[in-house]
This record gives sequence, C-alpha cells and structure tokens, in this order.
Amino acid sequence: MKFGVAMFPSKELQDKVNQYRKRYDAHYALIPPHITIKDRFEADESEKDEIAKYLKEVAKKHQPTEIEIKKVSSFSPNSLVIYFKVEKNEELQSLHDALNSGDFYGENKHPFVPHLTIAQGQTTQEYEDIFGHLSMIGIQHKETLDRISLLYQLENGVWQVYETYRLGEG
Amino acid sequence: MKFGVAMFPSKELQDKVNQYRKRYDAHYALIPPHITIKDRFEADESEKDEIAKYLKEVAKKHQPTEIEIKKVSSFSPNSLVIYFKVEKNEELQSLHDALNSGDFYGENKHPFVPHLTIAQGQTTQEYEDIFGHLSMIGIQHKETLDRISLLYQLENGVWQVYETYRLGEG
Repeated sequence: MKFGVAMFPSKELQDKVNQYRKRYDAHYALIPPHITIKDRFEADESEKDEIAKYLKEVAKKHQPTEIEIKKVSSFSPNSLVIYFKVEKNEELQSLHDALNSGDFYGENKHPFVPHLTIAQGQTTQEYEDIFGHLSMIGIQHKETLDRISLLYQLENGVWQVYETYRLGEG
Repeated sequence: MKFGVAMFPSKELQDKVNQYRKRYDAHYALIPPHITIKDRFEADESEKDEIAKYLKEVAKKHQPTEIEIKKVSSFSPNSLVIYFKVEKNEELQSLHDALNSGDFYGENKHPFVPHLTIAQGQTTQEYEDIFGHLSMIGIQHKETLDRISLLYQLENGVWQVYETYRLGEG
C-alpha cells in the first residue's frame, strides 16, 4: 500500500488554504492542507510497525519548529502547481533529510521545497490566470509545527492519517 | 472548534466499507470509515493540549482490542442510518465510558452502539430499498484496533486527525 509523511498546520491556516484549494486544487477532496515531508512510497502493510518505529525515533530527535509563510510561488515550468511557500529552516530540512536520504524507502526525486499547495490540475492558460491572481495575495503567517503524521492511501484515493508523532518527545 | 474521538480500522476494512459508502453515505467525503468513540463536542483551540493529555491517559489505561463484525443493522426508526454492527466488548465500552461519563465534555446522548456507518442521508423509501439490499450482505470480520484518534473539523466540514494515541502505551 502507499504511505506518505506530512505535517498538518493549524486549523486556521488549513481553513485559509482551503478557501483557495476549493476552487483550484484537483486534490482538494483527497487530503487536507499539509506540508509533505516524504512523498508517497510503496510498502507492505506488514512493514507498518517498522515504519512507525522509525518515525517515532526521527520525531524524538527533532524539536517543534516555527514556520513562516511570506509568499505565493509556483513550480512552473516543471509543474503547474501554485503554493504558499514555507521558508526553509534547519529543523524542516533535517526532518526531510532523515526520511529521504536513502535509508528509508528511497531518496527524494526533487530538492526539498516545503509548501502548502493551493492550485494544481489546471491547463496552462488557467494556470497563468490563476497564478496572476494568486501571486497578488498578501500572506504573512507564522506558527509552530509540533508533530509529523504517517498517512496511507485508501483505494478511493483519500489519504488517512494512520499515526502521529510529536517532535521532541517519546 | 469541533472535536471528536474515533477509531479507524484497517485499510482492508475501510476499503470494503467505502464500497458501500461511496453510493450510500452522504458523509462519504468528510471522513474515512471509523468507529465513533465520542461524538463531536465544542472546545476552544486553547484546550487542545488538555484534551490531548486526557486522551493519552485514557489510552494508556486500555489495551488493544479485537473487534468482530457479524451483521448489518440500522438505527431505524430513530434515524435512517445503516451500519456494520461492531459487537460490543468490555474494552470498547470502557473506552467509550471514559470519554462520555460527564467528566470530559459532557455525556453521550445515546447508548453506545459501536458501528461503521455504510448509509445515511436517504429518504425513507430509498432507505428501505437500500436496507433490504444491504441486510443481505454476508459479513464476517475480525481485527484488532490499537489506537484512538483525536479529530477536529475544518470549516469545509472535513474531519482532520489531529493526534493518535496507542492503547496500552505511553
């Protein structure tokens, strides 16, 4: 089955992001607003306990981290995804690296760009209109993230949180 | 904001339940298949840490529990909800009671009937047709549940897992 690791921000930020996703994100119904820490990976259900154990260890070795969002950005031309850019910080990078350096279900295919997706699945023309509009949004937000979540994907495409791990505890 | 406490079964059982929910459950898109342990309750976001602490304590005092499903049932005439009935057991009842006896955001309004909803939101005529059909399903399923999940509801109605607590640990 397919697993992934993400961080979910506060309800306040999720609700704000959803206002845009509702109109612009083709994956709106499949997962609430999140920051991906490890992209989907394939593992047998029987490996779940080992995965959970590893994530618990990684979480214990990290601390809650303050994130800051200052602007809207895009992965264009690589992909027509528009997002709230989360400023990189050491703790996020270290969390990412612990899960994507090759010891744990493969390396990341892309450099780590922490973000909250607000639009995807549009045609090029739609993308340009929407990006023009969204890049005018003034966003300035800070909050502290204190946990990572292990998710698996149901057959209908929806991502279910299997378990959560608090940073700096355990 | 609105909180709730639920247990999520295995992906296998969730996928099976979703085959029916997809057609018959008006709440299909808002939450994956689950067993409600405490109905939605209102609390301020600032109470989240206290709620989490309480749930961790409750989880620690309980053990993983084997559930069994043997039939389809319904809450009719009280409500037109059709569900897979989860046989009651002491551990489930004790978990429920710890969260619904009045010390923790009020008592339960109904007796505890553990279940996985498969249909709701139909008219009486639709309900009767669907119940006639679904009550013929042969279901026989056992599995062990090992954690409870604290959820909150986003403005769009979707329930987000905030944190999970393993039974018998902590």
